[in-house]
Amino acid sequence: MAKTLFDVVDELDNFPYYENDPDLSQEHLKVYHAFKVNGIDGILGYVPNAVVESFPWPKDSWIIDSTAQTITLLSPPDATVAARSEMMAQTLRQMAASGDFKILQGWRDERFPVYGPCGEVVVEIERSASALFGIITCGVQMVCYTEDVHDGSPRFWIARRSRSKQTYPGMLDSTAAGGLSAGQLPRDAMICEAMEEASLDLGLLEASMRCVGCISYFHVRGRLAGGETGLLQPELEYLYECKMRAEDQIPKPKDSEVEDLRLWTVDQVLGALKNGEFKPNSAVVFIDFLIRRGLITPEMEPRYIEIITRLHRRLPFPSPRRFNSSR
Amino acid sequence: MAKTLFDVVDELDNFPYYENDPDLSQEHLKVYHAFKVNGIDGILGYVPNAVVESFPWPKDSWIIDSTAQTITLLSPPDATVAARSEMMAQTLRQMAASGDFKILQGWRDERFPVYGPCGEVVVEIERSASALFGIITCGVQMVCYTEDVHDGSPRFWIARRSRSKQTYPGMLDSTAAGGLSAGQLPRDAMICEAMEEASLDLGLLEASMRCVGCISYFHVRGRLAGGETGLLQPELEYLYECKMRAEDQIPKPKDSEVEDLRLWTVDQVLGALKNGEFKPNSAVVFIDFLIRRGLITPEMEPRYIEIITRLHRRLPFPSPRRFNSSR
Repeated sequence: MAKTLFDVVDELDNFPYYENDPDLSQEHLKVYHAFKVNGIDGILGYVPNAVVESFPWPKDSWIIDSTAQTITLLSPPDATVAARSEMMAQTLRQMAASGDFKILQGWRDERFPVYGPCGEVVVEIERSASALFGIITCGVQMVCYTEDVHDGSPRFWIARRSRSKQTYPGMLDSTAAGGLSAGQLPRDAMICEAMEEASLDLGLLEASMRCVGCISYFHVRGRLAGGETGLLQPELEYLYECKMRAEDQIPKPKDSEVEDLRLWTVDQVLGALKNGEFKPNSAVVFIDFLIRRGLITPEMEPRYIEIITRLHRRLPFPSPRRFNSSR
Repeated sequence: MAKTLFDVVDELDNFPYYENDPDLSQEHLKVYHAFKVNGIDGILGYVPNAVVESFPWPKDSWIIDSTAQTITLLSPPDATVAARSEMMAQTLRQMAASGDFKILQGWRDERFPVYGPCGEVVVEIERSASALFGIITCGVQMVCYTEDVHDGSPRFWIARRSRSKQTYPGMLDSTAAGGLSAGQLPRDAMICEAMEEASLDLGLLEASMRCVGCISYFHVRGRLAGGETGLLQPELEYLYECKMRAEDQIPKPKDSEVEDLRLWTVDQVLGALKNGEFKPNSAVVFIDFLIRRGLITPEMEPRYIEIITRLHRRLPFPSPRRFNSSR
């Protein structure tokens, strides 16, 4: 059965809301330990109980409180980011070596930042381990589009992921996208991804690419995400647009990750959204674009308000406040 | 001292968040009675205890539970919207006649809808009384702008409110704005307001105006709002843009409500935002515009994420799901 646009959002932002049902929400949290860092206030993520219980966490680096359901990195309160990150990395290498964690088979050797209560970086963590700890991860996504010369309606450059990819094989995707590593500015990350994934020129991107906002949602990972299911993925995605003129170069796949990149009309995109053909967190990038352009309106979409508020969820963990690198 | 953009948002969205501090949030709610309608699930708004206690609510229409802190309209469970609305109107006329409620001195003879759990209209309520009940109110706001022929940078048509207005006198405002009455479609309401407040032609609006999203926030009314302070105003504002070309007509005030309407540059708008010159819920319309256009970026604004999520707050009351009139 065709999905509604609300279904698409609801399947992505699928961690329960406390306000909707406090009991259900508390029940859901019982299967996780809160991830904390010694000396830092607040909860920074959630680790599934099964992950906490299936690994001999080094006692000099971690303390587990089974009653309070917390797992805390035991770095000294005044430790540097580098020192905490090295402590974390040692544990993660042992976890990967154990072979017990499917998601760590996708080891990236790329680090994601974890933010503290003032938006400062507290510790960095190997990218493939971020969902094990349920920390906020940040990404960038770009929609390149052309405008019809007659009626101004947009056509979107949409990628189809390679059918051999581990995650979301064969699904539709934004023109270019990627994760935001520690120390990277969103704009720089977006430019890199657009050059690498869509073969676009730096000059074109610097002239025509612009940031148009940010979406946020709290996802519980399912089967297509790869790795263990039930891992938490609270995410922030900075959104970029790039309007291409007739004389501009055409986005092209550079490597085998992308099967093809071609132009889609608004109606084709709406059809593919309803058929569930998009990678979930790329689907909502197109929904947000269509809302910003007045192509999805309050009059045509009954759950317009809910779609917009759900795509800008205030996450229950600290988020970044500035992008000065800590290094 | 100059405000930051985050301060501007924080002063508007100033009802505490449960997740930040459950105790403070519960404490804050103790000064209100939950507004309910007999036979309808859930809380539809909040009435300050002082309002509940200072009026002899007709016993055949209302039941007050001082322990549970609820005030419930006693319409039959299967009552029509018209029947509930008439019951509400009778009470409100008595409240206005008592002279005890400053906010009812601004009686509008215009009704706002109150939504139930499935987004359906449950009851309609005189506009000036909506904040007494703390129900969600919906509005429309439009920014008309031109683009610089050389660098494409926008210039905004900004209204200054008359210095004799009761609410927010002399403050800056969007090009046109208004409340959404019962049975009105957002687009129709926006067109009406733009014709009435900015003297714009229907033809221009139909060709160039587009809906670009919605913002939502939970406001506790202060002194400049007029009427009692401490009243709650959870609000949804549908946002519209209208790009004006050189040959288009110029927005002009039609009545004495608007002192002037003139073109402002981006830097002038940012300066006025920081000086607190805008009506609070118009200020954020310009912040949202500047974010959508890439003129406020994650690299320049440290609290970019918080600004965006706070401006799309998920309100703790049912919101509209469609705009078919119930009448």
